[in-house]
Amino acid sequence: MAERIFSEKHQVLFYETDRTRKTTVGMLVNILMLASQDQSIALGLTEEKVNALGYGWVITQHIIDIQRMPKYEEKIRVFTKADSYNRYFCYRDFWIEDEQEKKIVQMHSVFVLMDQKKRKIARVLKNLIEPYDCEYSTKVERTPNPKKLTTARRLPAKHYRVRFMDIDSNQHVNNVHYFDWMIDGLSEGFLLQHQLRRMNIKYKQEIHYGETVESNTEIDDKKLETFHVIKTASGESCRAHCLWEKNNF
Amino acid sequence: MAERIFSEKHQVLFYETDRTRKTTVGMLVNILMLASQDQSIALGLTEEKVNALGYGWVITQHIIDIQRMPKYEEKIRVFTKADSYNRYFCYRDFWIEDEQEKKIVQMHSVFVLMDQKKRKIARVLKNLIEPYDCEYSTKVERTPNPKKLTTARRLPAKHYRVRFMDIDSNQHVNNVHYFDWMIDGLSEGFLLQHQLRRMNIKYKQEIHYGETVESNTEIDDKKLETFHVIKTASGESCRAHCLWEKNNF
Repeated sequence: MAERIFSEKHQVLFYETDRTRKTTVGMLVNILMLASQDQSIALGLTEEKVNALGYGWVITQHIIDIQRMPKYEEKIRVFTKADSYNRYFCYRDFWIEDEQEKKIVQMHSVFVLMDQKKRKIARVLKNLIEPYDCEYSTKVERTPNPKKLTTARRLPAKHYRVRFMDIDSNQHVNNVHYFDWMIDGLSEGFLLQHQLRRMNIKYKQEIHYGETVESNTEIDDKKLETFHVIKTASGESCRAHCLWEKNNF
Repeated sequence: MAERIFSEKHQVLFYETDRTRKTTVGMLVNILMLASQDQSIALGLTEEKVNALGYGWVITQHIIDIQRMPKYEEKIRVFTKADSYNRYFCYRDFWIEDEQEKKIVQMHSVFVLMDQKKRKIARVLKNLIEPYDCEYSTKVERTPNPKKLTTARRLPAKHYRVRFMDIDSNQHVNNVHYFDWMIDGLSEGFLLQHQLRRMNIKYKQEIHYGETVESNTEIDDKKLETFHVIKTASGESCRAHCLWEKNNF
């Protein structure tokens, strides 16, 4: 089967960046997801159509590698390719190239189909995945879990109430807000002096409007690794492992 | 002097919308501001250049009229025009047209130049404003203050801690986050059943990283008007008056 790679141009907007004038990791994932949304629209498999069937695509994991973050006003090209699927999981690759066609970001993501009434994972429907020229494979990928830290310092937990605008059309917190809660768990000094290089984020349980979220952060100051857990009253919702690098000033 | 209107196309991205699939008012203002930022870049008056001189443009008021909110995937055109200026204030108009060239949103905004070291308003520098073909006028506009409500019901205050990603390159909370804090002060039911038609928002005092914000909301259920005050420990930072309309289902 022919590989179907979808790509589109994007110019980084000011509200996709923070005061370092580089995209935040949450916005980076938003920008990457634009490509898969637009591919779906191009194939006639819009979110509305999937919702009308009683389903919604939900992300369960992202593994992101960042050579460098796109900068404010930078012209980039975003690529995506539905890689393979099995009974329950779909695997998708994303990447970003700069104007010199250099890959600066890669992401591997795991999607499932959610039955919106039962709020449960459904079997992948052939007619919702085949138009992407995505290969069926009986093999379930062994995507690594976010790694726990062995020597770590615990930072004070921070709390957030889920706001109206954090909820997406799947009626739960959009996966992108977790990045802001996790990153904000780190200190200002650390964030200004370090670059995120790699992030492995895994979602376990959805969060709804009005819930209070606790963001827990651990840091290994030597290895420059951080570990994040997002919890609500009903349990753990999401965890992530990050790898950082000191800025070269 | 020739009127210099700047315009650009924009297609509404999924992360500019909420679960109603329409842009949030915060993102609407972001989209409008894109046009003035891109006009500044086109004129060689980038933010970096203004910052290098020790200044930053700061918004003190927006008056927004919304015939209808742009929708997800909608192709719109955003217009802006620096209207006039006096010793301390610059007035700028923004508007959005849909694909049928129908005006769907208008915004009138007041800008001042901030001395970044003194954190004080500076006199408008001629060389920073003249390239916009903006008229000098001795007249200070009488832009109305956000109107207080006479018969109103007070809603429970909500609290937010300013996060790392809420801070912009002026080193204070970007004006757009105030919209989210204000809108989130209203109930989910109200937000799903009403459309924002008009908003008058006035900024008094900047807010910094780590501060805690209190969002106070009053509602007149009959007139469908709301009044919002954002406070921190150091006093009132911003207030707004909004006019709403019931959805036509």
